[in-house]
Amino acid sequence: MDNNCAYCMEGSLVEQFGIKICELPASKVYLFKEQSHKGRVIVAHKKHVGELVELSPEERGAFFEDVARVASAIHAAFHPAKVNYGAYGDTGRHMHFHLVPKYTDEFEWAGTFAMNPDKVYLTEAEYAEVIAAIKKELGV
Amino acid sequence: MDNNCAYCMEGSLVEQFGIKICELPASKVYLFKEQSHKGRVIVAHKKHVGELVELSPEERGAFFEDVARVASAIHAAFHPAKVNYGAYGDTGRHMHFHLVPKYTDEFEWAGTFAMNPDKVYLTEAEYAEVIAAIKKELGV
Repeated sequence: MDNNCAYCMEGSLVEQFGIKICELPASKVYLFKEQSHKGRVIVAHKKHVGELVELSPEERGAFFEDVARVASAIHAAFHPAKVNYGAYGDTGRHMHFHLVPKYTDEFEWAGTFAMNPDKVYLTEAEYAEVIAAIKKELGV
Repeated sequence: MDNNCAYCMEGSLVEQFGIKICELPASKVYLFKEQSHKGRVIVAHKKHVGELVELSPEERGAFFEDVARVASAIHAAFHPAKVNYGAYGDTGRHMHFHLVPKYTDEFEWAGTFAMNPDKVYLTEAEYAEVIAAIKKELGV
């Protein structure tokens, strides 16, 4: 637990970039407010661990089952051609993966992805619709 | 198995960007020739699977144990402040993660990382030294 960490404290710290979707066995799932890639989310570990090497094999396995479950839900809800997975966090030390759906020939196709393109934000109703589609596929 | 896939065919297709370090239970490990980030490697699945959602939980667990083992070796060999993890592959559909060591206040610190910065290449002797340091920590 870290008092300056968005993923530990949630509330206003997370609201700067995300909207909580749900919790899964090992993780917390957030919609990334910047939606250049429709369905982009963050899967953060429930514990304040810096990197996957700090987890036990069982904890690591449980976390990546959550990641796979969320990625499958994104595939089912939005039909991207691929989901990209990225964990950076050089300065904030709370393990989280960005799950970034890529659509053939659309934004950032065939490359990496920016931390935050800062281009596409939705209305509250549109965020609610995307979140509902993901929750439906997650069965939560 | 895909005849156009670098990770399936290895040889000259891989030599364009990587040097094989070793195989682990679920993966093949390559040094990324572009070494803007000292110790940057690729961990590719042994099978031609497109994305982690296509693996069984046991296969996924085995793969991330390899990833964690390689990341721990990079930490031990080069002491980065953080290792970043990224899987993209929008066009090539063979699951692999880039493991990118980040050093405080150095290149691309506190951000994502480029697919290939195309700036830093080593001599054969320097590549051999980096590979030897990783293999020593992997115990292979």
